[in-house]
Formats: sequence, structure tokens, C-alpha cells
Amino acid sequence: MKKEAKKENIENAIHKIESLKLRPVPLVGTERTVIAIIGDERILPVNKIKAMPGVEKVMEVLKPYKLASKEGKKASKVRVGDVVIGGQEVIIIAGPCAVESEKQIVEIAKSVKKSGAKILRGGAYKPRTGPYDFQGLGEKGLKLLAKARDATGLKIVTEVIDPRDVELVSKYTDILQVGTRNMQNYPLLKEVGKTKMPVLLKRGMWANYKELLLAAEYIMAQGNREVILCERGVRTFETYTRNTLDINAVPSLKELTHLPVIVDPSHGTGKKSLVTPMSRAAVAAGADGLIIETHCDPENAIVDADQTIDLDEFAKLMKQLDAIAKVIGRKI
Amino acid sequence: MKKEAKKENIENAIHKIESLKLRPVPLVGTERTVIAIIGDERILPVNKIKAMPGVEKVMEVLKPYKLASKEGKKASKVRVGDVVIGGQEVIIIAGPCAVESEKQIVEIAKSVKKSGAKILRGGAYKPRTGPYDFQGLGEKGLKLLAKARDATGLKIVTEVIDPRDVELVSKYTDILQVGTRNMQNYPLLKEVGKTKMPVLLKRGMWANYKELLLAAEYIMAQGNREVILCERGVRTFETYTRNTLDINAVPSLKELTHLPVIVDPSHGTGKKSLVTPMSRAAVAAGADGLIIETHCDPENAIVDADQTIDLDEFAKLMKQLDAIAKVIGRKI
Amino acid sequence: MKKEAKKENIENAIHKIESLKLRPVPLVGTERTVIAIIGDERILPVNKIKAMPGVEKVMEVLKPYKLASKEGKKASKVRVGDVVIGGQEVIIIAGPCAVESEKQIVEIAKSVKKSGAKILRGGAYKPRTGPYDFQGLGEKGLKLLAKARDATGLKIVTEVIDPRDVELVSKYTDILQVGTRNMQNYPLLKEVGKTKMPVLLKRGMWANYKELLLAAEYIMAQGNREVILCERGVRTFETYTRNTLDINAVPSLKELTHLPVIVDPSHGTGKKSLVTPMSRAAVAAGADGLIIETHCDPENAIVDADQTIDLDEFAKLMKQLDAIAKVIGRKI
Amino acid sequence: MKKEAKKENIENAIHKIESLKLRPVPLVGTERTVIAIIGDERILPVNKIKAMPGVEKVMEVLKPYKLASKEGKKASKVRVGDVVIGGQEVIIIAGPCAVESEKQIVEIAKSVKKSGAKILRGGAYKPRTGPYDFQGLGEKGLKLLAKARDATGLKIVTEVIDPRDVELVSKYTDILQVGTRNMQNYPLLKEVGKTKMPVLLKRGMWANYKELLLAAEYIMAQGNREVILCERGVRTFETYTRNTLDINAVPSLKELTHLPVIVDPSHGTGKKSLVTPMSRAAVAAGADGLIIETHCDPENAIVDADQTIDLDEFAKLMKQLDAIAKVIGRKI
Repeated sequence: MKKEAKKENIENAIHKIESLKLRPVPLVGTERTVIAIIGDERILPVNKIKAMPGVEKVMEVLKPYKLASKEGKKASKVRVGDVVIGGQEVIIIAGPCAVESEKQIVEIAKSVKKSGAKILRGGAYKPRTGPYDFQGLGEKGLKLLAKARDATGLKIVTEVIDPRDVELVSKYTDILQVGTRNMQNYPLLKEVGKTKMPVLLKRGMWANYKELLLAAEYIMAQGNREVILCERGVRTFETYTRNTLDINAVPSLKELTHLPVIVDPSHGTGKKSLVTPMSRAAVAAGADGLIIETHCDPENAIVDADQTIDLDEFAKLMKQLDAIAKVIGRKI
Repeated sequence: MKKEAKKENIENAIHKIESLKLRPVPLVGTERTVIAIIGDERILPVNKIKAMPGVEKVMEVLKPYKLASKEGKKASKVRVGDVVIGGQEVIIIAGPCAVESEKQIVEIAKSVKKSGAKILRGGAYKPRTGPYDFQGLGEKGLKLLAKARDATGLKIVTEVIDPRDVELVSKYTDILQVGTRNMQNYPLLKEVGKTKMPVLLKRGMWANYKELLLAAEYIMAQGNREVILCERGVRTFETYTRNTLDINAVPSLKELTHLPVIVDPSHGTGKKSLVTPMSRAAVAAGADGLIIETHCDPENAIVDADQTIDLDEFAKLMKQLDAIAKVIGRKI
Repeated sequence: MKKEAKKENIENAIHKIESLKLRPVPLVGTERTVIAIIGDERILPVNKIKAMPGVEKVMEVLKPYKLASKEGKKASKVRVGDVVIGGQEVIIIAGPCAVESEKQIVEIAKSVKKSGAKILRGGAYKPRTGPYDFQGLGEKGLKLLAKARDATGLKIVTEVIDPRDVELVSKYTDILQVGTRNMQNYPLLKEVGKTKMPVLLKRGMWANYKELLLAAEYIMAQGNREVILCERGVRTFETYTRNTLDINAVPSLKELTHLPVIVDPSHGTGKKSLVTPMSRAAVAAGADGLIIETHCDPENAIVDADQTIDLDEFAKLMKQLDAIAKVIGRKI
Repeated sequence: MKKEAKKENIENAIHKIESLKLRPVPLVGTERTVIAIIGDERILPVNKIKAMPGVEKVMEVLKPYKLASKEGKKASKVRVGDVVIGGQEVIIIAGPCAVESEKQIVEIAKSVKKSGAKILRGGAYKPRTGPYDFQGLGEKGLKLLAKARDATGLKIVTEVIDPRDVELVSKYTDILQVGTRNMQNYPLLKEVGKTKMPVLLKRGMWANYKELLLAAEYIMAQGNREVILCERGVRTFETYTRNTLDINAVPSLKELTHLPVIVDPSHGTGKKSLVTPMSRAAVAAGADGLIIETHCDPENAIVDADQTIDLDEFAKLMKQLDAIAKVIGRKI
């Protein structure tokens, strides 16, 4: 309560709390009164209490996400066929930003598989900042991804950006990706939550850890518990990198949630030269996987040419990552 | 080009630019070579050029949004029946965060109309950060809004969050609102772009001015030029306010675009006590309108109780706003 | 306490709190135990408590700044001779970024006085981001400021950047300015706190309201209560403006402190074209004053040419500001 | 130039550039004219040019820091006696936030030395956000640090916060530390620049890479080239960590400068539990060293108890760091 709160304000707040079947405990201090509230605060209409006369602020103790919270739970594993994300193995996802042609996607798939990747990424529906930019091949792209899977045995992850496409995309892919711009696209979260497919949920470039976990909670509340979180860079004042890849998110999220956490160093930095050192950093910090943009011919990639590494650099990187993983009792 | 770029790198870059039907002009400086490019840079694949060996960076001169850009255009007016946004009059939109009941919405509508508001706001579909929060009345809410319109003659604005709902919502509302979380929800932008209805586009809480204008461009590129921009607070490190309402956006956007610009001081601050001073600031800075959360009983509002002002405070505010508008040759 | 905290952890925390002469009140909830602490929490070693086993977090109720806090105090007025900052009158400070010559500073002083400014600004010691930039005239600049004061009767404010210069600068100026980069330069804060002179304390471009008030507390704890706070823009991801001028700081700080609050629209935006609209916004939001960069020949100003308005624009602006001030019961 | 710039504006800009002994090259494009400027742009008064009529913006190609820039230079090594920072070895600096007593500092020094640290950290002058917090032991603390050096052979680094103390602190320490709050305290930078001592310069929590390098340039311009840069976390919207440790700074700064780059995971995260994973990440990303807060009794550390690890955890961490360093051809 505010320092200047009246007796009547305090009594009203207490009655309000009691009317919600919660237990108020007034604590009369030297400078002001604080009312502790015992019970499940998730049923507390925080904004309404805040709006009452004499109330200074409401401080929440419990986390507003229940299913995603770590409390009392073991680390989850998300299984994609025989690929396990969140186990001892660090899972590497690689592939081009956009699917361009059968030749391109199959060539890349074969090469990254050889280097040790377990999952192939590739965009068929591209969310682009500008309306005049290439928007992806659509279903044709999905079919090419499926061909690359057939040719290599790799699993597939691809982004869905429209709730109307979830059914179609689910037919082709192994993992549904929800991109950074859609982290709070609630109709889309609900739609992917209704499937039983693994979902790769990227952190909004503006979102704090709590909001990312609430987005996961949206999916989980629909019955789908197969959520993989992905750090992909946040917005700061720095302009040298496109985003600031927040490696702190890895150990922090591990403290807050039981869900697996992977990292995208390509979008997270927007700079090809930073992909290798930041990939190493992510694995050293304990990431359960990485998603890396790789291309057979980065200079001529249609999308994200400036953050995509070539297949040789990827192969070298994989060796370093495996050695680092071993230092902390894991492997690639 | 980089300082250490080789002659061959420079020649390759020049050939690449020529192959795109643009004109390269190499400028040999004391420390490095810069290649000026003449032509419409919007056709330039910036990322590909950046990825070429020897290239240090690509600096863009032209703006990537053409339809939304101010250059060579007069200020636009968006007409909603007889209400004109972007003209001499500063248009005030008011109403509750969420439509709760017929009694609530009609009572509020009558009151805000009497105080001088021209448009009624009210949410029927609510994007909520947590999955367990009230999600709005849906079509029932739309019908109640329509009743309030019938009772008062006010125009209506309400948010649409799912591309599948655009058709339905369009049947009831006068203006479609795209919320902050959906500023880069491209399927939704395209869907509202296909209607001929005025669109109130809120700035993403992470988006810079350029990205807001690119989002407007998405709508406009579909043939719908009736876009109203809305500043609603951005994310900073400050935690006293829920967001940092960026009043600078008003005169800045006025320099960059011909579209009208309004301000939302309720979501922009998240604090009831700041709504009045920040509303005055927005009008003084040249905003074409405001969208303010008002409620007959803010303490018991289901959503956003802590940022909603009551009808009396709204009435007093309107008088101050009118006086300020007159100082800069406008009126409420 | 953490959900998984042991009985022993809870008992240890309770003993620790008791040993500090504070009163612990354990609240046993459905999911976890919370220990309320009654007493002056400012003596609580928060970090030590946080570091104890089983402790999840420490939430603070009291504000860590006592002298600067509004609680129980009336709004303060800072008097500079017959000029009162924090009263009914909105005080306008104007002048060039840097003092360049006698002719320049006297001409500007005369003009801004005629337009209604009460205080003259001008830098003699310039904190510049680059070591090769003009660093100010030093004591010679102070003498020229004094001449301009003699010629006009305006009061003077100028920046001090080195604790060793406080004594010298105090001989010439009426108000000591502590700049944004020095908001947490504690030796400097202590040194200006030891004088009895009014201090204009600018918000650090990274600092939240609480940190600004703690910086004021540093000055006040030395015995000098004459502190004027100044919002001057914070750092965000937006690059169109040099900084994001945070108008919300005006009504927010007014809720938190009794100290007067002024606004610097010139550094706050870094853009000449935004100075007029943002000045109007600041006064409309309730600022107690403005500090505006004005120059007789902005294009040839040695420093900050791109954010400095000319004397004619300043004169016009003053008329608008006076009209806006009157709307809220104040005047220029 | 602006699209609407007049012929006369363009000619004036050209004359202005010529008058500065630079060479203007007008490029007439389809939509506007761009004037390329050839010569050392560091002499260009950018703000003045920006302020000219018809000028839209000035885009800089050269970097404003010359001594700190990597261009044409090899990686620098900073030698502190026989300890080399910036070489093959990754140098670990460890010790308490504040020097508390002889027993404390000597015990910690012996232990971290045994674990492989080469340099001892410890604060004698503490910049504290609140004026009522412990401000350090001052010269007494310096003497205790010197004792710890005598007892172990470790080198010493300690912070200096007042230009008046540089001479005194230099008598005792091996490296002078300039803290995050003082990154743009120019009198202090100049004073440490006048010594010949190695300087550990911490990034301002608001500063981008360019500004950090300009701060280094201030020191170097005084003749002192022995500068070590230190990433220590920046301010973002995330509140779970005290700061967001920006690991991207390591490979990014390595691209921009020849100076060594180290990382402070303790202040960078503000959370004891994140120190180990983020230390590993920093080394994996290529840091030349780390500075880690360690204490014999973290719970009872006077300062920063919540981000300080104990001596056992430090010893374990050192083994992991050595293994990771070897993966990239380095060692601890």
C-alpha cells in the first residue's frame, strides 16, 4: 500500500482479496503496510488490485506459466523420430534460409548430413520485412524439403507463418517452426498447439524470458508439450550486428524451464563471420542444439546471403563443436 | 570496399552491379575505394553484395518503402464516413480495452461522445500475453460494438488478430486495428490490405520507424492506401512504465511519411496517472489523433484496469486537449 | 524462498534477518514459503540474502533514495537569484552548445533574453565522444559567459566534467551542470554536493528513473539540496533520432520525487527539426523548464550544428510554449 | 541531398566541401543527387554539413578511431611483467569485488593462483549506485592488494574512479581499471592515458562498440597504447539478469580493433549461477581473458555477494576453460 494509504483503503484491499478466496496477511511496517496474499496468485486480477485506491504496487511471487515452468520437473526431451533434443547429444540443424531448388536443397542436405547434422532447415514460407522481397516457394518448397529428407534420412524443420497453413505444412515437415515475429501470434500458437508435432518456438526479438515461456505455455495449454525454445538474438542499441545474440538465455532458461533450448547464431548475429565463434559459445554455455544457415553458394543465396556460411566452414565448425561438447560431458 | 580489398574484388563487384543494370561509379580515395551505385537501389540484392569478397558494407540511400514514403507527396487524409483523420481536426478515439456487456459499452460510448470523441474503441478479440487470461467476447463483442454505434453515431475501431477473422470483423467495424504484436504478421497485413477498409496499424513494441513504414507498405502494396499509423510505446530498459511512449515518433514519422499518425497513451505508458499528461504531450507534438482507454468503472474493468481512466477524467482531459490543439492551429 | 528450499534454509534465513534487527514474518503458502521482513529495509544487505541457499529472490518495497523521494514532501523549488525553478513559471534555458567568442555569446544572450529565456546555457568544458573533437574554451569560455551575464542579467548554467574544476567553475556560473556521461561519476557528484550551488543533473542515457534519483541522492547526501533533474534522451534501438527523448520521465519523476524536472529537447533528439514539437510536448506534459540549444548561425556552430535552432525559430517557439503553459495553469 | 534539394543547395554543399580541401564527386541519380567526398573524412565537420539546407544525411565510411582500429595492424599484446594479454594464452583474472581484509585477500589470492589465475582483482575504490553503500577501503585496500601480490607473485588490477587518485593507485597496482560508469569520463581517461601503465577499460553498459573504441582512442591519443578492452554486459529490457553479457562483442571487437578483449561474466550477468556457463562461452568465442569475482565466503562478501562464486567452483571452472581453450588452439 502507499505510504499515505488510508485505513479504509487497506480494509477495502483486504476485503477484495478475501472475496477472491485468497488469504490476506497485513504486515504493518515502520513506514507502510504491506499485504501478503497467500494462495494461487494466478487467479489474482493483478491489474484490478493495482487500480484500487491506496495500492502502490503488486509484486508477484509465482510464475504465470505453469506447464513450462521448471519447478518440480525434470528436463524434457523432445523426440523427432530417433533424434532426441534435450538429451546428452547436442543436435545440429543446418540448411539454407530459403529452399530454392531441388538441386540446391539436396546438395546441401547431403553435405550437412555428412558433417554430422541431424535435421535439415529450409524456408518455404518466408516472413520478409519488405513486401517486395522473395516470399518463398510455398508448397513447392515443402515438396523439395521432403525430397531432401528422402535422399538423406535427415529430419526436417520449416516455418509456418499463417494459421491456415498449419495443416498443410504438417503433412510435409517433422518440426513446425514459429518464427520470431510470430512469438505472440496467438491464433498461430493455438493452431500449432492443436497438432501433436514438435514445435520450434523462436524468441521474439523484443521478448524477455518470461514472455517466451508464456508463448510456450500457449502451445502447451492446447495439449502439445513438444516445445523446443530457440534464442535468436534480441534488439539492442548495437548496430554492428543485426541483433544481439543473447547467450545468457541458455543457462537462464535452463533455470526457469524444463524445455530444451537451442540457439540460432545466423539470425542472432546477422554476420557470417560471427557464426563460428558464437556457435562455439552457445554449445559451451550448454545449448541443446544449434540451427545454422548453410548454403552451397552463400554469395548467391536468395535470402540472408550475408549471414550464411558455406559447407566447408560448416564441416570445420562441427569438429570444434564436438570437442567443446565433450568438455561438458556431451557430444554432437 | 575493405581497405585490404584486391583489385580483382573491386572488379568483380563492378561487374556484379553492371549485371543488375545499375551504374557503378568507383571512387578511389586515400584509404580505400568506394563504389557508388546509380539507379533504383531497391532492385539491389544488398545481402548478396555484402557477401562478396572484399566488400565491407553497403550503405543505402533510398528508402525501401515507396508507397508510404513522404517524398513528393502531400499529407494523406483517411476518411471514415464523415470523420477525417489527418486533417485539421485532432480525432479522439476512446472506449474500454475489452467489450464486456451492452450496458458497459453503450454507457461508455454515450459519455465519450458527449466529451467530444469521434470514434469508439473496444476489443472483441484480445491478444493476451498469458493463455489463461480473458480472450474477448468474439463475435458477440462485435455485435455489442455495433449496438453502441447505432446508439451514438460514433464510428468503431476494433482489433483483428487472425487472418481468418478479417471478413467477419469487417462486417461490423469501421476501422480494422492491427495490434502491436501483429505488426509483422504478414498474412494478416495482406488480408487487411485486400479489404478497402481503413486500417489502424500499431507500431511493434520493438520496431523502428522504418519497419513500421514497411509494415504499412505491406498493406498498401495490396491496394489499400487507407492506413493510419499508431505509436503505442516501445520497449526500453525502464521498468517504471510498462512501455516507453515514444512521442518523438510523431514529428519523426511526419518527416518520413504522408500517412496520419496517432498516439495510444494508455498502452504506451501502462499507467493511468500518465494518460492525461502524455495525451497533452502527444497533441502538442502534432499527433493527428489519440486512442485512449476509458471505462465507466476502471477498477472493475476486466482488462487493463491499471491504465484506464474514468469518464470524468476523460471529459476534463478533452478540454485541455482542445486548448492545446488550438495553439498549433488545430482543434478537437 | 525457492519451492525446493529445505526447512533448514528457511530457518537460516530467518536467523539472518533477526541478526540484522529486522523482524521476519514467514508466510507459508500453497506452493512455497515467503518471508516478509518488517523494518527499514535500507539496512538489509540484499545481495547477501540473495546469495543464501534456498533463497529465490528478494523483492524490495522501500525506495533506496530517501532525500530525493517524494514521500511525505512537497514539491521543491530551486532558486537561482530571482529565478525560481519548480514554481508556477516554466523556466526556459537557452544558448549555444559551446561558447565560441564574446560576440557570439553576447548576441545570443541578448536575443534569447528578449524572447523570454531566463537562463543562458553555454559549454566551456565539452565532453566529446572523440578525442580529436573541439574540447571547449575552458576558463576563457567561463569569462565570456560572465560577460554575457553582465550584459543581459540572465543567469548562467555551464557544465563541469572534472572534480578538480568544480571550484573554478563555481566562481563564474550560477548553476553547475553535471552531464549525462557523468551521472554516475561519484567523485564529481560528491564535489558538486559539497558546494551550495544549484546543480542541473542530467539523466544518464542508460539510466532508469531510480538510478537518476540515486545520483541526486549522492549530491543531496553531501548537504546540497538544490538539485534540478533533466531528461535528455535515452538510448533505444531507434536510429532516426540520436536519442529517444523520454517525455514520460516528466510525469513519472513528478510521482517519485519532489525535485524539479526539466527537459533537453536538443540533445534528446539530436535533430533540429524535432526541437520545436518536442519542446511543446515537454511543457504540455508538465516540465518545469526546458534547456534548448540556440545559435545565431546554427550552420556554423562548432558543436551540435545539427540539433541547434536559430534565434528566430526560438522566438516563435517561445510564444507557443507560453500558450501551452497557460492551458495547464502555468506560464513562461 | 534531399530529393527536393535545389540546384543552389547542391552547389553550396560542393563549395563547402571544396573549402575543406576535400574532393566532392556529385553523382546524379534517378531520384536524387548524392555527393561522394574523397579525402580523410575525419576532418569533415559532419554536423555542420548535416545542418546545411538540402542535405538529407551524411554517411561516414571511415572509422573515427585511428589508433584503436584494426586496419593494417596486427593484434596487440599487452604485457604486464611476464603476463601477456592478447597472446596464445587466455589470461584469467580473479578475486573479490572489494578488498575487505588482509586475511580475505591473501587467502583468495593463494587459492586462485593455485587454480591457474595470473592476475588478482580487488576493489579499493568502489563506485556504488547508492550513496549509503560501502565505498571501499581506499589506500588501505591498495596496501592489502600489494601484500597479496607479495605473498603470491600474482599481478594486480584495481579500479580508479577519480583523476586525482591516478598517481596514488599507480604506485600500488600493475593494471589500472576504468569501470563501466567511467567509460566516457574524459578527464579520467586522459589521466590514465598519461601514465605508461596497462589500462583495463570496461565497456559502458550503454555503449556500442564504436564508442568503446573511441574511449580507448582517448587513452591512446595521450601516448599510452597498453589498453585492454573488457565486455561486462549491456543494458537491455531483460530483467532476469542484471545486465545482458554480450558475447558477440568478443568476435566483433576482434574484427574492429587490434586490442585484446576480455570478458567479465560476474558483472555481465549479476548471477552467480551464470558465471560458469558464460565463462565457458566467452573462452569459446575467442576472449583473450576473463575477470571473475571469486570469494572465500561469497555469502558474506560485502559487495556483489549474489554474483560471486566460491573458490572450489572457480577451481573446477578453470579445468573446463583450459579444455575449451585447447579446442581453439589456445590454453589457460
